[in-house]
Amino acid sequence: MTERKLCIAVIGIGGAVGTTMVAGIELIKKEKVTEIGLPLSHVKEKFIDYRNISFCGWDLLDYDLEQAARLHKVLTSEQIEEVKKELGSIKPFQAIADSNFLSNFSGQNTFNASSHMEKIEKIRADIRLMKQKGDSLVVLNLASTEKLVETEDEVFSSLSNFEKALSENSKKISPAMLYAYAAISERVPYANFTPSVAVDIPAMIEFAEKMQVPIAGKDGKTGQTFIKTVIAPALKARALKVIGWYSTNLLGNRDGLVLSNQDSLASKVKTKSSVLEDILGYEVEDHIVDIKYYPPRGDNKEAWDNIDFLGFLEQPMQIKINFLCRDSILAAPLAIEIARCLEFAERNGEKGIQEQLSVFFKSPMTKQTKPEQSFHKQVEMLEKWVFRS
Amino acid sequence: MTERKLCIAVIGIGGAVGTTMVAGIELIKKEKVTEIGLPLSHVKEKFIDYRNISFCGWDLLDYDLEQAARLHKVLTSEQIEEVKKELGSIKPFQAIADSNFLSNFSGQNTFNASSHMEKIEKIRADIRLMKQKGDSLVVLNLASTEKLVETEDEVFSSLSNFEKALSENSKKISPAMLYAYAAISERVPYANFTPSVAVDIPAMIEFAEKMQVPIAGKDGKTGQTFIKTVIAPALKARALKVIGWYSTNLLGNRDGLVLSNQDSLASKVKTKSSVLEDILGYEVEDHIVDIKYYPPRGDNKEAWDNIDFLGFLEQPMQIKINFLCRDSILAAPLAIEIARCLEFAERNGEKGIQEQLSVFFKSPMTKQTKPEQSFHKQVEMLEKWVFRS
Amino acid sequence: MTERKLCIAVIGIGGAVGTTMVAGIELIKKEKVTEIGLPLSHVKEKFIDYRNISFCGWDLLDYDLEQAARLHKVLTSEQIEEVKKELGSIKPFQAIADSNFLSNFSGQNTFNASSHMEKIEKIRADIRLMKQKGDSLVVLNLASTEKLVETEDEVFSSLSNFEKALSENSKKISPAMLYAYAAISERVPYANFTPSVAVDIPAMIEFAEKMQVPIAGKDGKTGQTFIKTVIAPALKARALKVIGWYSTNLLGNRDGLVLSNQDSLASKVKTKSSVLEDILGYEVEDHIVDIKYYPPRGDNKEAWDNIDFLGFLEQPMQIKINFLCRDSILAAPLAIEIARCLEFAERNGEKGIQEQLSVFFKSPMTKQTKPEQSFHKQVEMLEKWVFRS
Amino acid sequence: MTERKLCIAVIGIGGAVGTTMVAGIELIKKEKVTEIGLPLSHVKEKFIDYRNISFCGWDLLDYDLEQAARLHKVLTSEQIEEVKKELGSIKPFQAIADSNFLSNFSGQNTFNASSHMEKIEKIRADIRLMKQKGDSLVVLNLASTEKLVETEDEVFSSLSNFEKALSENSKKISPAMLYAYAAISERVPYANFTPSVAVDIPAMIEFAEKMQVPIAGKDGKTGQTFIKTVIAPALKARALKVIGWYSTNLLGNRDGLVLSNQDSLASKVKTKSSVLEDILGYEVEDHIVDIKYYPPRGDNKEAWDNIDFLGFLEQPMQIKINFLCRDSILAAPLAIEIARCLEFAERNGEKGIQEQLSVFFKSPMTKQTKPEQSFHKQVEMLEKWVFRS
Repeated sequence: MTERKLCIAVIGIGGAVGTTMVAGIELIKKEKVTEIGLPLSHVKEKFIDYRNISFCGWDLLDYDLEQAARLHKVLTSEQIEEVKKELGSIKPFQAIADSNFLSNFSGQNTFNASSHMEKIEKIRADIRLMKQKGDSLVVLNLASTEKLVETEDEVFSSLSNFEKALSENSKKISPAMLYAYAAISERVPYANFTPSVAVDIPAMIEFAEKMQVPIAGKDGKTGQTFIKTVIAPALKARALKVIGWYSTNLLGNRDGLVLSNQDSLASKVKTKSSVLEDILGYEVEDHIVDIKYYPPRGDNKEAWDNIDFLGFLEQPMQIKINFLCRDSILAAPLAIEIARCLEFAERNGEKGIQEQLSVFFKSPMTKQTKPEQSFHKQVEMLEKWVFRS
Repeated sequence: MTERKLCIAVIGIGGAVGTTMVAGIELIKKEKVTEIGLPLSHVKEKFIDYRNISFCGWDLLDYDLEQAARLHKVLTSEQIEEVKKELGSIKPFQAIADSNFLSNFSGQNTFNASSHMEKIEKIRADIRLMKQKGDSLVVLNLASTEKLVETEDEVFSSLSNFEKALSENSKKISPAMLYAYAAISERVPYANFTPSVAVDIPAMIEFAEKMQVPIAGKDGKTGQTFIKTVIAPALKARALKVIGWYSTNLLGNRDGLVLSNQDSLASKVKTKSSVLEDILGYEVEDHIVDIKYYPPRGDNKEAWDNIDFLGFLEQPMQIKINFLCRDSILAAPLAIEIARCLEFAERNGEKGIQEQLSVFFKSPMTKQTKPEQSFHKQVEMLEKWVFRS
Repeated sequence: MTERKLCIAVIGIGGAVGTTMVAGIELIKKEKVTEIGLPLSHVKEKFIDYRNISFCGWDLLDYDLEQAARLHKVLTSEQIEEVKKELGSIKPFQAIADSNFLSNFSGQNTFNASSHMEKIEKIRADIRLMKQKGDSLVVLNLASTEKLVETEDEVFSSLSNFEKALSENSKKISPAMLYAYAAISERVPYANFTPSVAVDIPAMIEFAEKMQVPIAGKDGKTGQTFIKTVIAPALKARALKVIGWYSTNLLGNRDGLVLSNQDSLASKVKTKSSVLEDILGYEVEDHIVDIKYYPPRGDNKEAWDNIDFLGFLEQPMQIKINFLCRDSILAAPLAIEIARCLEFAERNGEKGIQEQLSVFFKSPMTKQTKPEQSFHKQVEMLEKWVFRS
Repeated sequence: MTERKLCIAVIGIGGAVGTTMVAGIELIKKEKVTEIGLPLSHVKEKFIDYRNISFCGWDLLDYDLEQAARLHKVLTSEQIEEVKKELGSIKPFQAIADSNFLSNFSGQNTFNASSHMEKIEKIRADIRLMKQKGDSLVVLNLASTEKLVETEDEVFSSLSNFEKALSENSKKISPAMLYAYAAISERVPYANFTPSVAVDIPAMIEFAEKMQVPIAGKDGKTGQTFIKTVIAPALKARALKVIGWYSTNLLGNRDGLVLSNQDSLASKVKTKSSVLEDILGYEVEDHIVDIKYYPPRGDNKEAWDNIDFLGFLEQPMQIKINFLCRDSILAAPLAIEIARCLEFAERNGEKGIQEQLSVFFKSPMTKQTKPEQSFHKQVEMLEKWVFRS
């Protein structure tokens, strides 16, 4: 690629994923690590080079990124040592707080604003500043999962309704939506890596189309759902009949803490559940998805899946999958690739929902049809887009 | 499909897979079970209906199939009860014995013959009889794994060399090759569901081309390798670097007993090993495949895989997969579908290696290139062929 | 032992455990199975012979035991066939129903009674009838888990308070307590195999002492807790520090359905939780116990435990245990041994809490001290009692 | 305890376990870690204080212990940093090399000697030097597993035969025996933490008795066998019938490399196998123990066990145990405790085999009877000895 420079503006940049993204890119720049784990690292000619990426963002906590990275314990001490200067130089902008949407977690790095519009204006001002850091800017939402929003609500059904609700300071509007509205207003591509609803409502899709901004989401497909969307299509191709699928997750990081709040959990579980039936084409009678906050693990997420299915002569079999994974280590490179893809989309004049990025999401946004959930078909969809563009 | 009738002639029909195939088809005819586990059951219009399939075959043991099925303990007692008459009516033809190639297992249902050619003539006579049972005949090799053959040997390099070796009663020629030669001589499609070399040598491929007979193989992809070819492409698509893959198998049936002989094991492990590197595109330093004969399990095969890989920032993760499977329950429907595909290929005038059947095999035969090992790409390859033909 | 005969009266005899107990004893009488799984089968001279045991009991459903056994799918069809006559000859007496205490399950085989005392009188009359079936009678509570009772309540604190509450038809009194009161009134030993509170309140212990009746409980230690009380003492003996223990259970039988009700679940989880800390001697910060109703498994319970602990130099290690168990197959022999032990205790003039039976219970009743929870110490306690008596 | 000082002389001090022992004690001295993982840390008054322990030893490689510790990657980089000076100050004495007994591993830190007696004299001189480092000295064999020795050989049957063979430089005598002979000659207690035969032959037991020296062995019970001797007695106590037990181990450290040599493996597997039957009291038809050298794991050993057993009504169940352990982290504290126990035994005038240390060994040496293998009974045996002495 040319020498274009991309700045990624991260909502929640001080989190485990945010700091891992930044450290990873800086370690690559210093040739301390290879590009392992970055799914599009084999496509050199289309995307912005990893070495031309910089970062900025907002966070509820005011730690600089070195401090934040030490807390999250994702990086090895050797890795932090290598890039502590680069991490330390990034300080988060003040974030929007709203305890209605995030009850287990709060911070002090927030600003006072009396209305939704005032908050949006502040974020827009931040974004205009950030734009000066590169040739392109992309906003990624990596903030903790907000509680489930009733997306069917009239308020979200059109841009005009939404803007009316904005002006009336409706309590139905979440912080993530304010960030998204601000980004799109500034014609900056926006992707939602968390399960929170942000751009995944008719009003915001209409706005992105109108402003000709590419958007994508939602909920990064990192661990268990990644494996689920790999295994399920294979069982289907062998005509094996899934009669039960039990998935449990142990997670000890800030994300786990937030999810130990029931409302936020509902939001997460919802995006995890429908995936299976979309792939299999029938309803699995017993599909259980559980997430537990389990501090001994820290960022070392663990998933255990038990799959019960019938084979020939209706005889039962079982597969059990135990995934000892690293939450942020899996998430950070996906977030980076999403940003690179949005920059590529913008450069190619694309706007609205970027459906071809489905491979990165548990709950892909689509234009009209149901989302494609099979992992390998999503891979093919993305490759077709990359090499055709 | 039309009312064409297919007879499947099975080498080793009295084995666990053979008896399960027969019982399964008979139970489907009686509507006692659904078509679960048959991968092509959703394609009605192309293939011979399951209800129009009959069976015959050879075996080293002279049990009728009801007796054999009771020994294998694959079917439930209720299932055997339903089809005991149909099973009991099938008695295996006498098989070719050769203790050089199969040392842990022997039987009495064999015939005397002083030469390779005499053995071939006997099998050809059997096949001519069997042809009268339907509109089409297909020969499937489901016999126990023979010891590893040196396929690079000059003897196998051309049809003329092979036929010379046949006439000299070369000890290098295995029983599976005699069956294959006989089948092709009678212009009957032949597939090799075991890891034994049979048609997978230049001489036999040349012969199949010459006689215009479709052939396929080898080594049915049932349990662990099936999962391996599903998981590995997904790890590659995420740019996760596999640094170790340990696979162990516990198997208590006749197949396990035969594999507890080192020579037969070598043959099996060889076909299991190369798969991984073909998919990943690099050599995994520690790829261990182990198979243990473990009688407590009977036909209930168990596989345990441990995968070590690196993610972003070269941080390590692990996946462990425990597959509690049924060996014959997974194998039997694949064997049935292979036979249906060969009949379809024959009907469409295809000859030689049927590469598009790769999805059914651990070690797919290919015309020139390396085999495609990714499960989902094999599925697409097959679907393209089915719907194009 | 002499030729004494024992009749076991089971509350919930038509359940999976009840029918398995009966079938098991009948199959032993017919020499169709060995005594595998019966922990005291090696002690011949002390206890009543398995062949001298008979059964009766109550159930909310009016199926005879053959019908019930077929529904539970614990026995093989061959096993049911062998003892269907014996099973069919047992029909449950009418049971006490109380939807306040058991909300996910109901039945028709109940009787009308306007007061607690009337219910007790009916059960006492049943017990007097049952006594005629052998030299000794023991009542075992195997009914579905009732919702958690507030055992600290004043009502349960003394026999006089309890009897006052009985006469006032207090809603705090559960059906299990009525059975227990009736049994003790008739001087019949009583054991509580479920987690429900029944005799485990001061009032009932006082009553048992007064009536000189041995009692025992509560909550049979079958699968996961059995393993937990085996592993935890070993970790302690190695000075390994447990920092997290996550236990999940998949259970598809009637017990699982009842536990899918939150109140009943609380009762079960409570007895499961304290065990660990009692053994280790310190509080495990993250001890999670979860139970899921998961129909694909039926009576084939599955437990998955993940244990995080620190070793030398405070370095972390993990043990994961996957127990594919059979709920009723594990429970039934324990219930039989409890009954034999109570008969032995009665014969030896013991009364009140039989603490030495702790090995059979998740939440052992004790006289004053905290219960011994280590499995091997419980085994030694029982052996000392058996061989000393 | 008093202020007595103990020096532990380690054969193979530069190995993963040796360096971990040293670092651990030094970190405890500095109060950087607690005494977690040291099984006798709760017994303060009997044994030498951990803070009064020092180390010396022999090794085939001449790295100082800081260099060695960095290679083994058992300690965290923070931990090495804390004690690098202490580690660096220890340099191994030259070791006895003998490629007949150890084929996959060799080193340069060896000495020239033309005869067994000359080697013994050199080791004795080393020991006399080492004795000056404390009030007591104990020799521990932590060297890599030697190949299996034929212990029934006439040569090992008596001290006189052994000494004759020594003088004749018999090739049957292993390096471990030379160290043991030297230690006992100097009246220094000796324990064998590896599976190698050293003092576990009649000749050496006779010698220890004669010299009044306590000895112990063999093969530290760290991971899988520890768990096996915990689980098996519990299954027996429940009368559950084990019909198969499959154990596999993945190990990537120097120990694993040595064991990838078949002769050394035989030695290891032998000590692991008999354990199970000794506990259960019957022969398990299918007991498989496998060890694989698997470099991706380094010192992070992994064990996977699958246990098949029958319960009541002879119905099958399974337990699977996955132990993600740290080989040296488990071994080092046991080795330290063995040394403390031998010092305690010596102080109490004990001599010959110290059977009460069985809890630390896979293959405990006993005076006459079969060894006790049940973990909890071994724990009790040790406690009785400690608190009685």
